[in-house]
Amino acid sequence: MASEKCLAKGSCAPGPLAKGQIRLYSMRFCPFAQRTRLVLHAKGIKHETVNIHLKDKPYWYFENNPMGLVPTLETSSGQVIYESLITCEYLDEVYGEKKLLPADPFEKAQQKMLLDYYSKMIQLFYKIPTGKNKGEDISVLEEELENKFVWLNKELVNKKTQFFGGDAITMIDYMMWPSFERLEMFGLKHCLDSTPELKKWTERMSEDQSVKATMHPIETHKAFGKSYFEGKPDFDYGL
Amino acid sequence: MASEKCLAKGSCAPGPLAKGQIRLYSMRFCPFAQRTRLVLHAKGIKHETVNIHLKDKPYWYFENNPMGLVPTLETSSGQVIYESLITCEYLDEVYGEKKLLPADPFEKAQQKMLLDYYSKMIQLFYKIPTGKNKGEDISVLEEELENKFVWLNKELVNKKTQFFGGDAITMIDYMMWPSFERLEMFGLKHCLDSTPELKKWTERMSEDQSVKATMHPIETHKAFGKSYFEGKPDFDYGL
Repeated sequence: MASEKCLAKGSCAPGPLAKGQIRLYSMRFCPFAQRTRLVLHAKGIKHETVNIHLKDKPYWYFENNPMGLVPTLETSSGQVIYESLITCEYLDEVYGEKKLLPADPFEKAQQKMLLDYYSKMIQLFYKIPTGKNKGEDISVLEEELENKFVWLNKELVNKKTQFFGGDAITMIDYMMWPSFERLEMFGLKHCLDSTPELKKWTERMSEDQSVKATMHPIETHKAFGKSYFEGKPDFDYGL
Repeated sequence: MASEKCLAKGSCAPGPLAKGQIRLYSMRFCPFAQRTRLVLHAKGIKHETVNIHLKDKPYWYFENNPMGLVPTLETSSGQVIYESLITCEYLDEVYGEKKLLPADPFEKAQQKMLLDYYSKMIQLFYKIPTGKNKGEDISVLEEELENKFVWLNKELVNKKTQFFGGDAITMIDYMMWPSFERLEMFGLKHCLDSTPELKKWTERMSEDQSVKATMHPIETHKAFGKSYFEGKPDFDYGL
């Protein structure tokens, strides 16, 4: 279902869900929706996917999500959940015995503080290639991103663990992954050169089954990225 | 302890905490720190308060919170928790049988979605008086705020409840309260004129014991606000 073409204005709304089913409204290349896709896969949650044309949104979609953003989850009882972190926490609480967030309140707070730090970095991943495309000097922004990477690298060095929440992948790793999958597409892979532990983390992450199941090949990211930065995102690229 | 003068650069760091004790680093007029103060009071959590001079921060404070912001919590085992929402959720999970966040994952997600909506409004509360002080036309911003208030008002009308999470105060109410306590100080009280349910909510909130225990009289807010908008915040005003 995840490979279905996106629905645009004029499309019919998908029908009601069978009891107990869950639906994800997504966009194949959206890094925020990928967070939810990662959690759905990691927890083995059977679901249906409906991709949305984010530049020509169907009117009916705003009834689900007033902001018209993805990801959005819909349950068979009509519950609607949006904002990527909220959808992921909801799925983790409702489904499966194996939890991605730690049960310990302090460990959970630590993941959320790190995620808060990371969330403030996300705009840099977009600002730098956008500035580059406009011919602007992006050296200061790149230095800022590299400094943030140094901070994340230090976190891993201090923790002495394979992943950010321990020696197994937990929620924090999945929440951070989508931007790192797109580093080459953003033209920012060299920013990892001085942060070997963070680089190793990206290598370990790329071996994970859920990461493999939700990722796109670099050529596909580059082709979508080109269309995106040219202002005409091709949401159905490769279908 | 909450009325103690703030600590600035050159001050000594507070000593270690007795086993089981918790310390809040705060600033008496900070609306984000007030969230944590509300939760500490509502759950009856015994704690120590250290106020920080936010314009002249002590060096030792950055060892607790690399961003140097308040609120920050410190436990006797040296755990440090910051970011207002994270501190409140931590306190709710660790302390007391009566929980402020609902146990049901969907109800919890609803509170977080509403809080996310609200968080995006917060900048307006500051942008409007700042613009006004500079003599700028703030009518568009005020209209934007009023539209957000209409949305919140509709939430209450649809829910048919006294508070945003039901007929008793829950986490979402405390998280939103501090900006509403400051509406008159911001010169924005008239923005509630077309939203009677939201106005009634503010009246109900102001009767709550924890709100009463953490609030400042309007004259005090105005005096602090004046010093704040003049760029010389008087963190110890009234002591």
